Amino acid sequence: ELVSAVEKHFLAEHQLKNIKITITAGPTREAIDPVRYISNHSSGKMGFALAAAAAAMGADVTLITGPVTLATPAGVTRIDVTTAEQMHAAALKRAELSQVFIGCAAVADYRVADIATQKMKKTTDDSINLTLIKNPDIIADVAGLSRNRPFTVGFAAETQNVVHYAKDKLIRKKLDLICANDVSNSELGFNSDNNAITLISAVDEKTLPLQSKTELAKAILLHIYLQFSAK
Amino acid sequence: ELVSAVEKHFLAEHQLKNIKITITAGPTREAIDPVRYISNHSSGKMGFALAAAAAAMGADVTLITGPVTLATPAGVTRIDVTTAEQMHAAALKRAELSQVFIGCAAVADYRVADIATQKMKKTTDDSINLTLIKNPDIIADVAGLSRNRPFTVGFAAETQNVVHYAKDKLIRKKLDLICANDVSNSELGFNSDNNAITLISAVDEKTLPLQSKTELAKAILLHIYLQFSAK
Repeated sequence: ELVSAVEKHFLAEHQLKNIKITITAGPTREAIDPVRYISNHSSGKMGFALAAAAAAMGADVTLITGPVTLATPAGVTRIDVTTAEQMHAAALKRAELSQVFIGCAAVADYRVADIATQKMKKTTDDSINLTLIKNPDIIADVAGLSRNRPFTVGFAAETQNVVHYAKDKLIRKKLDLICANDVSNSELGFNSDNNAITLISAVDEKTLPLQSKTELAKAILLHIYLQFSAK
Repeated sequence: ELVSAVEKHFLAEHQLKNIKITITAGPTREAIDPVRYISNHSSGKMGFALAAAAAAMGADVTLITGPVTLATPAGVTRIDVTTAEQMHAAALKRAELSQVFIGCAAVADYRVADIATQKMKKTTDDSINLTLIKNPDIIADVAGLSRNRPFTVGFAAETQNVVHYAKDKLIRKKLDLICANDVSNSELGFNSDNNAITLISAVDEKTLPLQSKTELAKAILLHIYLQFSAK
């Protein structure tokens, strides 16, 4: 009853009005050569649903997205990027101007050390080695801002020990909140229209059961709003 | 004048009736772990345009495709695959039953040697090594069939020395025809709706200028039909 009343108030009153929210979405792509790349499974649907819901609630939303095939939600400012380094630069610039930052993108942890400028020819070797180097950590760098640090929300997509790894990430990267989801179940997460998430902060945990990403986005934003306002 | 008359006849008379054509399209994806993969830039548009044109000309078309976001053309039998090994198995099975095989897919030359069954955790190492091993060569294996070998058409997407590399591929893989295109120009090829192609056989070369992939597909099929019929 209480949550429902709060939610009604929250949705009706455009409580996110005048709040700047930056959201990252989708995968990043790290080039191997002009035709090959490393990427990850992410349709961008969760991040786009969050952007749409936040804009509908009156927020001033910037959506920084990797390559996806989704339409920009109404009223959202969209910035397209390809690589993790590009997303890092765009995200840090926007984060300092935002009150809330939600890192929903599935960012590549590593990129190729030496990107070939021409298409690599298949050699007679049966195997080749690809050296990968670490990408900058976008969410940790946002949470670590010494000035104008926004309320920082991360995502943790895991295939095992989901809550354990998510809590570790929350603490290690100094996030305010983390949304953990189990991507070993193909019914939810990547590419699916549905998702189930556990919201974890330093002091509590809340499970949002399987539902559409649109509904889930609203529930996540309500939770963020309540925590953010209480700070 | 002559080509246009031939083309008219060809299109009107459903000259590809009773001809079985197998076409591969799109990229392949090679898993690194459950969330990461290696892939390549290929929208599948050229292969899907070839399948649509061949079906419209009366052929019995099987389209074997990697992950794309395209609708199946009318009258086409579609087989979805993810990896190069899956595409190889499906292609070889179908090729022996076909009179024409067109390998338009951008198949990964290499796959990851040891695919992690759980999401790899970011380590404290600044760099990691990924060992890649060679994938089977689909087009070479089709062209090398000792029984029921179809008329075999390959594609060569190159960023430099385009015709030189394509000719080398034609001869080395014993193809009947190769369609060479220059993907260093972002106006054509990957993800674009347009393309320009040079058709190369052992005896001649023909350049098809920049046009829509739909128009180009018809011109390629006409060329294949004329060469195939002359054999």
